[in-house]
Amino acid sequence: MDREVYLDYQSAKPVDPRVVEAMLPYFTERFGNPASLHTVGDRATAVLDEGRAGVAAFIGAQPDEVIFTSGATESNNLALIGYANRAKREGAHVIISEVEHISLHNIGKFLEKSGFRVTKVPPDQFGRIDPDKLRSRITDDTVLVSVGWASNEIGTVQPISRIAEMLRGTGVALHVDAVAAEGLLPMDMSAVPVDLLSLSSNDIYGPPGLGALYVRKGVRLAAVTIGGGQENGLRSGTENMPAIVGMAAAARISAEELPRESARLAAMRDRLIAAVLSTIPDSHLNGHPTERLPNNAHFRFEGIEGESLLLSMKDKGIAVSTGSACSSKTLEPSHTLISCGLLHQEAHGSLEFTFGRFSQDADVDRVMEVLPDIVARLRRMSPLYETH
Amino acid sequence: MDREVYLDYQSAKPVDPRVVEAMLPYFTERFGNPASLHTVGDRATAVLDEGRAGVAAFIGAQPDEVIFTSGATESNNLALIGYANRAKREGAHVIISEVEHISLHNIGKFLEKSGFRVTKVPPDQFGRIDPDKLRSRITDDTVLVSVGWASNEIGTVQPISRIAEMLRGTGVALHVDAVAAEGLLPMDMSAVPVDLLSLSSNDIYGPPGLGALYVRKGVRLAAVTIGGGQENGLRSGTENMPAIVGMAAAARISAEELPRESARLAAMRDRLIAAVLSTIPDSHLNGHPTERLPNNAHFRFEGIEGESLLLSMKDKGIAVSTGSACSSKTLEPSHTLISCGLLHQEAHGSLEFTFGRFSQDADVDRVMEVLPDIVARLRRMSPLYETH
Repeated sequence: MDREVYLDYQSAKPVDPRVVEAMLPYFTERFGNPASLHTVGDRATAVLDEGRAGVAAFIGAQPDEVIFTSGATESNNLALIGYANRAKREGAHVIISEVEHISLHNIGKFLEKSGFRVTKVPPDQFGRIDPDKLRSRITDDTVLVSVGWASNEIGTVQPISRIAEMLRGTGVALHVDAVAAEGLLPMDMSAVPVDLLSLSSNDIYGPPGLGALYVRKGVRLAAVTIGGGQENGLRSGTENMPAIVGMAAAARISAEELPRESARLAAMRDRLIAAVLSTIPDSHLNGHPTERLPNNAHFRFEGIEGESLLLSMKDKGIAVSTGSACSSKTLEPSHTLISCGLLHQEAHGSLEFTFGRFSQDADVDRVMEVLPDIVARLRRMSPLYETH
Repeated sequence: MDREVYLDYQSAKPVDPRVVEAMLPYFTERFGNPASLHTVGDRATAVLDEGRAGVAAFIGAQPDEVIFTSGATESNNLALIGYANRAKREGAHVIISEVEHISLHNIGKFLEKSGFRVTKVPPDQFGRIDPDKLRSRITDDTVLVSVGWASNEIGTVQPISRIAEMLRGTGVALHVDAVAAEGLLPMDMSAVPVDLLSLSSNDIYGPPGLGALYVRKGVRLAAVTIGGGQENGLRSGTENMPAIVGMAAAARISAEELPRESARLAAMRDRLIAAVLSTIPDSHLNGHPTERLPNNAHFRFEGIEGESLLLSMKDKGIAVSTGSACSSKTLEPSHTLISCGLLHQEAHGSLEFTFGRFSQDADVDRVMEVLPDIVARLRRMSPLYETH
C-alpha cells in the first residue's frame, strides 16, 4: 500500500510528542486533586494555576478569565446556553452566523426550545459575515451574537475585530468559536473586545477531551454542568490535570511557532490550490480567495460526488474530508456551502484538504499524482458531467 | 523530609503505568476522529467500539448501554437532569439519599430551581439507607431515586441490590453513583436492575477527564450537552479516544485484580482500624463496622479538629482527608457525618484514610508511628478535650 497521507487536520490532530512528554508525569507521580488540602493537593493547585496562566497568555487574557471544559462543544454549550440563560431577563434573542459548526446550530435549536428566538445571519458567497448585515439583525431584545473566528469547513476567516468593535458598548455580547483558527491566526483578547471565546486543546495539538472558554472579566454566565463548584462555579468536575498541563504546553509551542508555521502551511495550501485549479478542468475554490485559513484548501469539482472522491482518495491512502467530520456520516450536503449559495449537487461535489504540523510538501505532490486521474475517472462514469 | 505517604485515594488516584502505556499510541500515531470517513476515522471507530465494549464488560452491561462523558460529575448531571427532564410529564419528584457526594446535592438544588421537588432520604447512624424508609418516601409523582453504591467519605456500602429489587417494576428509575465503589466491589448490571450508573475513569486508575454513564436499554434521557450528536445523541463532543482506550484498559486490569486487591486493601484497613481504636483513646470509627468499602477507614477523635489533624499529618508527609475533597476547602462540617447524627464538633474531629493500589503495609506502620502523638499533642492544646 502507498504511504498514508493525512490531510484532514480539521477533524482530528495527533498530539505533539513534546506535549505528550510534558503530560506524562501528571498521570503518575505528579497526579493530584487541587481540592485536596495536603501536599499532593497543593502541588496540583500550583500546576492548575500555571496551566491556566499558560492558556490565558496564548490569547492575551488574564488567568481568571479562562475556564477549563471538556472540549470545544462544552465550551460552546457554556458560552451560549450559560450566557443566554443568565441574560434572559434582558432579552431573549440570539444571533448565530449561518456558517458555524453544526454543533452551534444544534445549541441554537436547543435555545429555541428553551424560549429564545434565534436568528441566523447569512454570509456572502465567500462565507464572510458582513458586520453591517449583522448589525441590521440586532434588536432591543438581542443579548448575544455568535460568529466563529474562521470556518472549520471552507476556511473563510471572519472580520472578528470589526464585528467586535461594532458590538462594543451595545450591551450585546459576542461569542467567538475560535477552534478552527486557533494556532493558525494570532488572537489577542487584550486588543479585540470579544466577550466569550471557545478553544479546544486538540486543535493546537494538545490532548483531546479538554477545552477552554475565555470569559471576559465582568461577563456573567449560568453554570451548565452542576456539581462541586470547580472553575469558579461555572464548570464542576475534578480538573483534568494531565490534559491541562498538555494544553498549556501545546499553547506555548503553538504561540512560538505560529508565524513560521502558518507561512509554511500557507505555501503548501497555495501550491495545492494553484495545481488543482490549473490541472483539473471545471474545478473551483470554495470559500474566500485570500481571507482564508493558512491550512485550508476546499474545492468543488463539477459533475461528481464528494463522497466518491473521498473514497477513491482513501483507496490511495489519502485522508481528506467532504466537510465537517461531525456531519460527514450523515451524507447531507454541507449547510455552510448551501449558505454560500451553492446548489445541492454543487455542494455535494466538494472536497476539503486541511494541512497541519506534520504535513510535508510531498503530501501535495502525492495528491496531485492521484487526484486529476480520480476526478477524470469519476466524471467518465458520471451522468451529471458533460465536457464543455 | 520523611517518605511521602498517600492515603487519600478517594480524592485522586495516579493512573496505572500499564494504562498510560496502553493510551500512549492513541495520542500520536493512532489518533483519529471516529466521525471521519477515511482510514484514520475507520480505525478510530473500531477503537471506540472496543473501548465501549471493554467498559461495558466491566459492569456486566451491553456496549450500547455505555455513554462516555467527561467524568463522574457530568455522568451525574446527565443521569439526574437528563432523566428528570425527559420524565417530567410523568412526575416531578426526585429522591436523593442524604449521604451522596456534594455534587449530587447541588444537582438536586438545580432540579428544584427547574421545578422539581427533591426529597432527601436520611441514613441510619452508620450511613446506611434503609430500603423501607426509601419506599415510604415514594409518591405517585416520583420518577427517580439516586443512591450511591457506597459513600466516598465514610465508606458505607448501600444495599443496592435490595433497593433495586424494591424499585423494579414501580416505574421509578434508580440512579447509582458508583464512583466510590468501582474497582473495589463487583458490579453486574445483568444481575442488579439499576437503571443508570455513574462511573469515573480515574477511580479505577484510568486517566482523569473521562467517565461513563450506564443507561439500561429502554431508559430514555434528554441530552445535557448539545452539539454534533455523538454518543447516541446524548453527549455531544468529539470522543476522547486516548482516555477511552485508557479507561477500558483500567477496567480490564481492575476486573482481573479486584478479588485479590480488595482483600489486600481490607487487610490494611482492618489493621489500621484495630490499631487506631486500641491505641488512641476516645477514637471512634465512622460509617458501618462491616458493610464498608475495603479501602476506607474513617475515624472521629474526640476533642480535636480534623483540619489540625490533617495539617499535622501533612507536616509528617502523610496525605489524608477530612472528607470529600470537593468540599474540603470550604471547612464546613461534612453533611454526611451530620446526616449520621454527629454533632458539628464531632463531625469536625474526623479524618479519612483511603488505601489504594500503591498502598503498602508500611503506610499503616507510618501512620501509627505519628498519629497517636499528634492526637495527644492536639488534645493537650484543645479546650474541648478533657481526659475522662
